[in-house]
Amino acid sequence: MVKLNSFLIEMENKNIFSNVGKKIALYKKNNPNNNILSLGVGDVSKPIPKKVIEAMHAAVDELSSMDSFKGYGAYYGYNFLKEKILSNDYKQFDFSLDEIYISNGTKTDSTSILELFDIDSKICITDPMYPIYRDGAACLNRKVECVEVDSDFVAKIPNNKYDIIYICSPSNPIGICYDYDNLKKWVDYAVKNNSIILYDNVYSSFIVSKNVPKSIYEIPNAKKVAIEFRSFSKCASFTGVRCSYFVIPKEINNGINELWKRRTINRFNGADYIAQKGAEAVYTEEAQKEIKSNIEYYHNNAIRLREAFSDMGFTVFGGIDSPFLWIKIKENMSSWEYFDFLLNSLEIIVIPGIIFGKNGDNFFRVSALASSKVIDLAIERLRNYYEK
Amino acid sequence: MVKLNSFLIEMENKNIFSNVGKKIALYKKNNPNNNILSLGVGDVSKPIPKKVIEAMHAAVDELSSMDSFKGYGAYYGYNFLKEKILSNDYKQFDFSLDEIYISNGTKTDSTSILELFDIDSKICITDPMYPIYRDGAACLNRKVECVEVDSDFVAKIPNNKYDIIYICSPSNPIGICYDYDNLKKWVDYAVKNNSIILYDNVYSSFIVSKNVPKSIYEIPNAKKVAIEFRSFSKCASFTGVRCSYFVIPKEINNGINELWKRRTINRFNGADYIAQKGAEAVYTEEAQKEIKSNIEYYHNNAIRLREAFSDMGFTVFGGIDSPFLWIKIKENMSSWEYFDFLLNSLEIIVIPGIIFGKNGDNFFRVSALASSKVIDLAIERLRNYYEK
Repeated sequence: MVKLNSFLIEMENKNIFSNVGKKIALYKKNNPNNNILSLGVGDVSKPIPKKVIEAMHAAVDELSSMDSFKGYGAYYGYNFLKEKILSNDYKQFDFSLDEIYISNGTKTDSTSILELFDIDSKICITDPMYPIYRDGAACLNRKVECVEVDSDFVAKIPNNKYDIIYICSPSNPIGICYDYDNLKKWVDYAVKNNSIILYDNVYSSFIVSKNVPKSIYEIPNAKKVAIEFRSFSKCASFTGVRCSYFVIPKEINNGINELWKRRTINRFNGADYIAQKGAEAVYTEEAQKEIKSNIEYYHNNAIRLREAFSDMGFTVFGGIDSPFLWIKIKENMSSWEYFDFLLNSLEIIVIPGIIFGKNGDNFFRVSALASSKVIDLAIERLRNYYEK
Repeated sequence: MVKLNSFLIEMENKNIFSNVGKKIALYKKNNPNNNILSLGVGDVSKPIPKKVIEAMHAAVDELSSMDSFKGYGAYYGYNFLKEKILSNDYKQFDFSLDEIYISNGTKTDSTSILELFDIDSKICITDPMYPIYRDGAACLNRKVECVEVDSDFVAKIPNNKYDIIYICSPSNPIGICYDYDNLKKWVDYAVKNNSIILYDNVYSSFIVSKNVPKSIYEIPNAKKVAIEFRSFSKCASFTGVRCSYFVIPKEINNGINELWKRRTINRFNGADYIAQKGAEAVYTEEAQKEIKSNIEYYHNNAIRLREAFSDMGFTVFGGIDSPFLWIKIKENMSSWEYFDFLLNSLEIIVIPGIIFGKNGDNFFRVSALASSKVIDLAIERLRNYYEK
């Protein structure tokens, strides 16, 4: 037999997202008349903004005639979109077009970026954390180590040296953010240790707190050490459309920016044209207004969830600068047991904390991205159970 | 400094596609009133079929309202599309839905599939060959070896054992196909050596010759050893839209099919919904009719190019079951020298053969995917030069 990638064989397969789906499917099969409310997977419920829809229709039309047809695009994305990103999201940072990369999903790229680095690079994450960093790295024959977190789930600065540091802020699953001071400590660590920070900032549009940087580049010297990932998925409801972007500053030494270009021409044929034309329209005034209103809608969901869980006596993290809440289980149950209990007793879906690492087993993750109706019904069921 | 991936550092950077683009950009800058005709990059000129355009508009509309909105799709693609692929392209082979994977580009996946296999797997390609197999593998810290080809550029069966074999048929760049007997030899080799064949079949819609299998699964036992890649790029003009698919038969031992699922949930969030809805409509009668007519259009281009180059005394390969022609340089020039000569003297772009491996340096690749007008003008200029 052909020998397989041992990292894949050894990969965690019990405590993973897709098992949530399998359990739900089984429950639905056994309970066809179920009335399940999902606060689980972090998918949006609001549709794509009108101006973006118009732009995508126009793009589809362009593809219908020989004169306006667009085939292979630029490997790294079209300039029309990069210009909007530069002049809106990164206005104050003086980046150039070839420091911005357009792609089709941060999930893929936050791992693929490891292809740049030596296979024995020391990589750190935290526990709990978005498990894709760990399991994606395994697909690329790399192992990760966990650094400790403080009582707010912010990673503590370790004594030893790591080459690559994953930071997710606003955090999935905790829903908390690295404030200016915490982030500065990590940038300083990276500068001192010649490390690279992979900064997963896909929930940036949810940030409201004053002391939380909207971009890691607000921290001095971050341009020398940080690659920042963002996405249109959550702000513009692109979860089904697939368009994301990231910044590789030229100031990062060792020619990392150029090296990514060399990697990408061999691994990728560019993001979808229709998605990129849609993403361009995300920056119109009308779309920005609609996005602002959608984010407020999710924020309101999160606030109601925070209040309800707090009222019921739960310890709650997140939900302020993030659509996610990270909630401590009160019962003497593991997170899978609690998941089963909520599904079977209340027909409510959450994500068991252990999926994000073994330190998460006393917790569950709740998403505020569902519709308000679903959120309110779920709160009602929970209150009926916990407050009766 | 953080240590980089040495495979990337050592990667070929002189004889690569993107340098063709750079040379053209420089020429255009120095010759603003140029009249360049491109027979270079294998991008299509025909637009997307009408029925597919309609389906994509309908999909965009679905994304505009909360009731019909589609977010994250299935990791491996929607069943509505897989069912069409099964019942059309793989009707006679009795595959199941979970043997088909929908993705966003064969370029990416034909390399990413290596993540399944041990990092020290012995991988073979030919020289010349599509260089992405070599350079993509390098991104994933893997080296490839070249096996010899016969006088028709078909890979000869080697005496030693390879774990993974890349076969591209219809071939890029040669434009020839592996006929039934040649393909059977390789399937038999793979069965005997427990190897996996990665069969890049993205140009399958161009096959007209009777003795050329449209799918590798026409060969007995291929289901035990072969992964076949196909794409909507060339047949349905999806080069800018990004939708591809591949088959991982369950009959391949070692649980390869299941292992790819485990890999993919950690590396990919599914293909674009609009693209998948468009791809579904590729299988309508109306779209199939339009595609047939487009393929005939490109075939006619290829026939005219074959005739013209043969008339001018060139040795020509391909162009029958493929949109590519592989042509021997008559002059005493390297393939870059010939590229420069054609660009500077005739303002015609071709691809220098050395990009496909050092054995390609006496050749150049010509694409018949341009518009007929461009093809005819290019032929006229070439005839004027060579036949005057």
